[in-house]
Amino acid sequence: MKVNNIDYRTVWYQDDKVYLINQNLLPFEFKIFEAKTCNDTCFAIKTMIVRGAGAIGAAAGFAMAQAAQALKKQDENYIDYITSAKNEIERTRPTAQNLFMAVNKVFEAALISPQDAIRTAFAIADKDAEDSRNIGILGDTLIQKNWKIATHCNAGWLAFVDHGTALSPIYEAHKNNKNIFVWADETRPRGQGARLTAWELNAQNIPHKIIPDNATAHLMSLKMIDMMIVGADRIARNGDTANKIGTLEKAICAYNYNIPFYVAAPTSTIDINCDNGQKIPIELRSEDEVLFQTGVNEQGKMEKILVCSPDSHAYNPAFDVTPAKLITGIITEKGIISANEQDIVKIMRNN
Amino acid sequence: MKVNNIDYRTVWYQDDKVYLINQNLLPFEFKIFEAKTCNDTCFAIKTMIVRGAGAIGAAAGFAMAQAAQALKKQDENYIDYITSAKNEIERTRPTAQNLFMAVNKVFEAALISPQDAIRTAFAIADKDAEDSRNIGILGDTLIQKNWKIATHCNAGWLAFVDHGTALSPIYEAHKNNKNIFVWADETRPRGQGARLTAWELNAQNIPHKIIPDNATAHLMSLKMIDMMIVGADRIARNGDTANKIGTLEKAICAYNYNIPFYVAAPTSTIDINCDNGQKIPIELRSEDEVLFQTGVNEQGKMEKILVCSPDSHAYNPAFDVTPAKLITGIITEKGIISANEQDIVKIMRNN
Repeated sequence: MKVNNIDYRTVWYQDDKVYLINQNLLPFEFKIFEAKTCNDTCFAIKTMIVRGAGAIGAAAGFAMAQAAQALKKQDENYIDYITSAKNEIERTRPTAQNLFMAVNKVFEAALISPQDAIRTAFAIADKDAEDSRNIGILGDTLIQKNWKIATHCNAGWLAFVDHGTALSPIYEAHKNNKNIFVWADETRPRGQGARLTAWELNAQNIPHKIIPDNATAHLMSLKMIDMMIVGADRIARNGDTANKIGTLEKAICAYNYNIPFYVAAPTSTIDINCDNGQKIPIELRSEDEVLFQTGVNEQGKMEKILVCSPDSHAYNPAFDVTPAKLITGIITEKGIISANEQDIVKIMRNN
Repeated sequence: MKVNNIDYRTVWYQDDKVYLINQNLLPFEFKIFEAKTCNDTCFAIKTMIVRGAGAIGAAAGFAMAQAAQALKKQDENYIDYITSAKNEIERTRPTAQNLFMAVNKVFEAALISPQDAIRTAFAIADKDAEDSRNIGILGDTLIQKNWKIATHCNAGWLAFVDHGTALSPIYEAHKNNKNIFVWADETRPRGQGARLTAWELNAQNIPHKIIPDNATAHLMSLKMIDMMIVGADRIARNGDTANKIGTLEKAICAYNYNIPFYVAAPTSTIDINCDNGQKIPIELRSEDEVLFQTGVNEQGKMEKILVCSPDSHAYNPAFDVTPAKLITGIITEKGIISANEQDIVKIMRNN
C-alpha cells in the first residue's frame, strides 16, 4: 500500500537484511527498522516492531533465510546453526500459526541450500500479499451498500505483507463505492485498532471512528453495526479461532444480536494438526502493556505514562479463542467457508 | 473509609462549602476540592472531580442546598434563584438517577426554608452511606469462600458517600475471611477500574489484578470468574439497568457462560417512572477521553498524551443499558430482588 505516495510492503528482504515498518512508532512516526541478522529479526518479532499473523510469518521466513545465508552450506556447523536459529525464531511468539508454517517451510528449503531458503521465504511473502488481495475480492461480495462494519485489532495491510485480511474486503468495498463506514475497536492494551487500523483507514480516506472496546455491544444493541470482520492468528481444524484478546467478547455479542461475524484469514493460518481451540497456546505478555501507555505529549514528544493505580498488578493475555459456533464464516483466499471441520479439511486438501 | 488512617467520605458539606475528593487526580494524588458555590459544585460534577451514582447524588443535593443558602428566603428572587440553580445542576450529567432524586428532594425542602434544604441534603448523604453498608452485608451472603469476583468501573466507596455498592459486599466478604480475589476491568476510556477500584482494593489489602476490558470473556471461558458484581446509574421499572459503558458486554458474556451477574444499587437509583431501559438518556462525552490518556510519566509528572491515530475521531458513549433478563439479581439496601417489574414495584412501595 502507499505511504506518502510510495508503495510499501510491511516487511521485505534485501542484501540479506530484513526491513520492517516499525509498528511500535506508528501512527506517530513512520520509520523503517533494519534487521541485519536473524537475531535482529527475532528481536523485531518479539518486541512487536512487526506484528500481525501474515507479517510475522513473512518476517519469520526471512529470519530463517538470514540464518541459512550466514553460513556456507559446506560449513560443518551448518545444520546445527540453522536448527538453533529455527528454535530461536519459534520462541519469539507462541500463538501465530503463520510463524511456524513459514519457519518450517524455509528450514526444509535451507536443508537443500541457502539459495532455496531465500527463494522459499520470498515465495511465502509474495503468497501472503496475493492471498490477502484475494480475500479482499471474495470478502467484498458479503458487504452491502451503506453498511457499518466493525473490526477488532488490526488485520490490515500492516498485519500482513500487503492488503491485509479483515481490512482487505473493506478496501475493496470502498473502491467499489459502497459507501461503507468502519468502527475501529481501540483494542487495549496495545491499541492496534486506535493506532494502526485508524491510521490505515485514514490514509485511504475511509470514513471511520475509534470506539472504546467497551462500546461494541452498545452499538450492536442500537443496530449501529451491520457486520463484524476480524483476523485470525491460528484456526484449529474444527474452526475454533485464536485472535487478539477481546475477539471472543465481540463474537459472543454479535451472536447475541444476530450480526454476521466473519473471520478473514489465508489458509496458511489454519493449523490442520490442531484439533480444537483449547489446544492453541495463548501468549501471556508483560503486565506493563496494561499498566503503562505510550503516546505523544503536547510537545510532540513520545512519552510513557502510568495509567493504573501504582501498587496494583495486571494480567495480560494477548489472545483468546472464539468457538467455531460463533463464527458466521471464514473468508480465505480460496473461498468463503463455514467454520467446521468438514469445510476446513476440504479446503486444506487443495493446499 | 480510611485514607492514610483518617476517615473520609467522598463528599461532605461544611460552612456552606462542599468538599470532594478529587477523583481526576487519583490514584496519583490525594487532594480535596473545595466548592465554594453551587456553581463550583456543578463544575465538579460536570468535570468528574466527583463521579459515581451515589456521590453525584450527594454532591447534587449539597449543591442545591448551597444555592438555597446563598439567598435569604425573604429575598424576592429566592424561588427564581433556586429554580435556576436546580436547572443548572440537572444539566451537569443526564444519566444518574440519584442526581435527579437528590435535587428534587432538596428543592422541595428549600421551598420551605434554606435550613430544611441543608437538613435534607445531609440526610441524603447519610442515607447513601448507610444504604451502601447494608448492600455490603446483604451482598456478602451471595459470596462463597475462595471466589474470584469480577467488577466493572468503580462502584466502590469513591462512587458513593462511603462503602460503595458493587465493592461493599467484597469489603464485607474480605472482612469475613472468605479469601476472595477481585478482577478489576480497567474500564476504558476513563479507567475507573484501573485507577479507582484498584486503588481502593489496594488500600484494603484485597488481592486483585487489573485486566483489559477485552479479557473478561476469555477469563470466563477458562472458569477464572465465579461471579460478577457491578453498580448502576439508573434502574428502570422493568429492571433494565444503565451503567458504565461495557457493562452490557460483560452481562452478555456472563449470561453466555452461566456466571451470576449482580447489580448492586440502593433503591434511590431506581427510576420508577421510567418504563424500560430504552427511555434512559445516555450521555455522550467528549472524544478526547478516548483519544488522549492522562497519567504520570517517569519523572512523576502528570502528562496528557495522544494514544490514537492523529487524524481520526472517536465516539464515546458513557453508559449502556443491560436488559433485565441478563441480570441475576439486584442487591439493594432492603433486600436482594429479581430484576423485574413486580419485585421492583414492591420494594419501592416501602420507600
